[in-house]
Amino acid sequence: MAASSIHSRISIASRYHSPGFDVSSCSDGIGSLSFSSRLTNPSLKSLERTKLVQMHRVNAVIRSISNFEQTEVDISLSPRVNSVNPSKTVAITDKAVALVQAGVPVIALAAGEPDFDTPAVIAEAGINAIREGYTRYTPNAGTLELRSAICHKLKEENGISYTPDQILVSNGAKQSILQSVLAVCSPGDEVIILAPYWVSYPEMARLADATPVIIPTDISKDFLLDPKLLESKLSEKSRLLILCSPSNPTGSVYPRKLLEEIARIVAKHPRLLVLSDEIYEHIIYAPATHTSFASLPGMWERTLTVNGFSKAFAMTGWRLGYLAGPKHFIAACGKIQSQLTSGASSISQKAGVAALGLGYAGGEAVSTMVKAFEERRDYLVKSFGELEGAKISKPQGAFYLFLDLSSYYGAEAEGFGMIKNSESLCRYLLEEAQVALVPGEAFGDDRCIRISYATSPSTLRAAVERIKKALVLLKPTVRV
Amino acid sequence: MAASSIHSRISIASRYHSPGFDVSSCSDGIGSLSFSSRLTNPSLKSLERTKLVQMHRVNAVIRSISNFEQTEVDISLSPRVNSVNPSKTVAITDKAVALVQAGVPVIALAAGEPDFDTPAVIAEAGINAIREGYTRYTPNAGTLELRSAICHKLKEENGISYTPDQILVSNGAKQSILQSVLAVCSPGDEVIILAPYWVSYPEMARLADATPVIIPTDISKDFLLDPKLLESKLSEKSRLLILCSPSNPTGSVYPRKLLEEIARIVAKHPRLLVLSDEIYEHIIYAPATHTSFASLPGMWERTLTVNGFSKAFAMTGWRLGYLAGPKHFIAACGKIQSQLTSGASSISQKAGVAALGLGYAGGEAVSTMVKAFEERRDYLVKSFGELEGAKISKPQGAFYLFLDLSSYYGAEAEGFGMIKNSESLCRYLLEEAQVALVPGEAFGDDRCIRISYATSPSTLRAAVERIKKALVLLKPTVRV
Repeated sequence: MAASSIHSRISIASRYHSPGFDVSSCSDGIGSLSFSSRLTNPSLKSLERTKLVQMHRVNAVIRSISNFEQTEVDISLSPRVNSVNPSKTVAITDKAVALVQAGVPVIALAAGEPDFDTPAVIAEAGINAIREGYTRYTPNAGTLELRSAICHKLKEENGISYTPDQILVSNGAKQSILQSVLAVCSPGDEVIILAPYWVSYPEMARLADATPVIIPTDISKDFLLDPKLLESKLSEKSRLLILCSPSNPTGSVYPRKLLEEIARIVAKHPRLLVLSDEIYEHIIYAPATHTSFASLPGMWERTLTVNGFSKAFAMTGWRLGYLAGPKHFIAACGKIQSQLTSGASSISQKAGVAALGLGYAGGEAVSTMVKAFEERRDYLVKSFGELEGAKISKPQGAFYLFLDLSSYYGAEAEGFGMIKNSESLCRYLLEEAQVALVPGEAFGDDRCIRISYATSPSTLRAAVERIKKALVLLKPTVRV
Repeated sequence: MAASSIHSRISIASRYHSPGFDVSSCSDGIGSLSFSSRLTNPSLKSLERTKLVQMHRVNAVIRSISNFEQTEVDISLSPRVNSVNPSKTVAITDKAVALVQAGVPVIALAAGEPDFDTPAVIAEAGINAIREGYTRYTPNAGTLELRSAICHKLKEENGISYTPDQILVSNGAKQSILQSVLAVCSPGDEVIILAPYWVSYPEMARLADATPVIIPTDISKDFLLDPKLLESKLSEKSRLLILCSPSNPTGSVYPRKLLEEIARIVAKHPRLLVLSDEIYEHIIYAPATHTSFASLPGMWERTLTVNGFSKAFAMTGWRLGYLAGPKHFIAACGKIQSQLTSGASSISQKAGVAALGLGYAGGEAVSTMVKAFEERRDYLVKSFGELEGAKISKPQGAFYLFLDLSSYYGAEAEGFGMIKNSESLCRYLLEEAQVALVPGEAFGDDRCIRISYATSPSTLRAAVERIKKALVLLKPTVRV
């Protein structure tokens, strides 16, 4: 097999034959192709782009030598690949893992998953499913048993009534959200996203040929939406408003009154649907309480509620999420899912039933974890509250602190250069303090950095010490 | 909560307010919207369609009464939902299940999954993963352990060299195929599909805004592709040729010589890539042997090899498949996956490693299952070989018999009406013989029906008896 040598020849050749078409950066899975994308918009402009792409395509054709006559292969990719950015949180986590593997004692506070094990009762249900040979295809929409349990949960805990045919179980909440966007958004539609946002929302809008419209929020208002600003951004094109409470990355929890105000605005727009991402629902700190948007008067028929098992039940690896909504939307998402992945793991679905059987809001198994998260939140808020130049909004839920350290921008670090933005600050903290954080720019707010506190208190203490120590080195310059 | 009553009012209202927009048929998940789709093509024609859709949209706006002022909700769906058909095999299976639940003793030979349990060693590996708390996110592309094991398997069993960064693990091979099509196909591209085909291939092409081009094959040639016909169908637009050997639904296995002939044609077309779906690889009956398309000279750099664990290892419920190919294609598919689902189940991936550890071609655990399938195949071929008016191509792999019973079309059945096509024949056999089969029309060949023999020999014998008895009732009319 000379396959691998042929392949390396392709990579080299493509750099020569494709000016403006940076294959090397796209093939590492982090960068992206260098020409514009949005080919799928039915506009004359995009027709011109088609020609451009076709020109590039010719350039991108590469040669390889084989036992056959000399052949050529077109290695161009669909424009939709370019329209999508890979997850920056994943990229940072991967870099931190690589450093750890190279022997550097990095503390990673970048990942979005609980540091707890899946509660024993849930794990046992998964084990029993395997033992009992419950390892066949389930219905595409999920087992009736799980969908019924989800209906019960949504009724009891969230005050929303659904029947099992209004539930679609997927391989994680990420899939639930993407399928919703794909099902309801047509080319040219706008998806309203509140910044700071979860990294995937804008990418999903682009995958659906829709346009993400970002509405900023401010740390001084606890990153909560200004309803007047929302009202000013809505138009005929507005198709989907994405809400996320408790919020990743800010930890904000939307009070019921504010959601009601938003609902009153939404109600004026016949085309506007709402996707309510409630994946962090159970990770919430008193006195904050969770309100499901679909439970508000008049909102049921236009809301798609997303939830899942990963965060509350420490089940990230099980890949299990769900969507609840009016039947015609759920059926459309199900149709997409039937060609995309089919149903979720039969084993995970049995575990999901056990999770919902733990009692109200996950019972003691979940409240123990939430209590631990709350203590860490309090520690972080206190620690960074003492730090000069740091702005904080006390998180009411989830397990992230979204910290404004922009007062350090402009500072010079010896042997590093200038701290220009959240990206260079995170790079500095990774190199100097060996702590991996995610730059706020990834979430649409360059003033901040995200600290995940889903890690042990001792690790957290060590990380805070290291971060503060590294920031002190910047301080003199900052205070100018 | 008056949510459900509001919802039913919506459904009724929508029937009145949306002429030409059949919400009732789309919301059952089987039918589809009644206007044309392909909006995402950047052509003037599609611009006209946009207007048409917007008109429908206005019609589709429905009214609902809530605590707020009277509001309206736009329940229209993205045109892409309409462009995709739901899986017909799933629809038939669901109907059979419903009949069984209603007390009708239906024998279902419609599903595409082994009737065996996952081999014990694999199941134990899954159980251990749960016990050891291996329940966190894995890397998006899959664990290095599993990807390394896949590389080893592909080298040893298939003679193809890959490195782990040329492997992408997904939630089932279905996802691997869809992501490949999405990554390499641009609007206007053609995807070459050989009929009879797996039901999802054309739908996936449509989801990628590409055009499926169907090339028929004939039962008299064992459903193998005529290379001359392929050559005549290829053009500048041809982007992806999908091969499936052993084939679902025909059980055909492509001989190496024929694949080489296909490779020589493919090599002449710089834009043409090949997706080789090898999911049934191990379910193959001597003297047939499996050839991986990527192992043919010159084909490595233009082939995307898809395989998985569902069929050979009886792991359908675990949702685990993979893609192997040149790094720039794999990275593009990985980027799509990072926004679509992230990585597959951590538990299933540990089980996958154990499956690949069973030895060459799955060792005894798999060969025992394959032997059982072969005996059933022999029984079916003998049974239907004796049947007047049936045409058979002896399957060389997979676990399906694709039987030509078109000589029965035109016959009248008492109390049923005329057998017009594969769909009405299957409906007749479901009602009269209470055996669930899939009409060949779903696979692009209306002359045939698909019988899945992934069931016990006794069930299979009962089914054959029932089918033959029901066909005899048709016989006098047929012989005209």
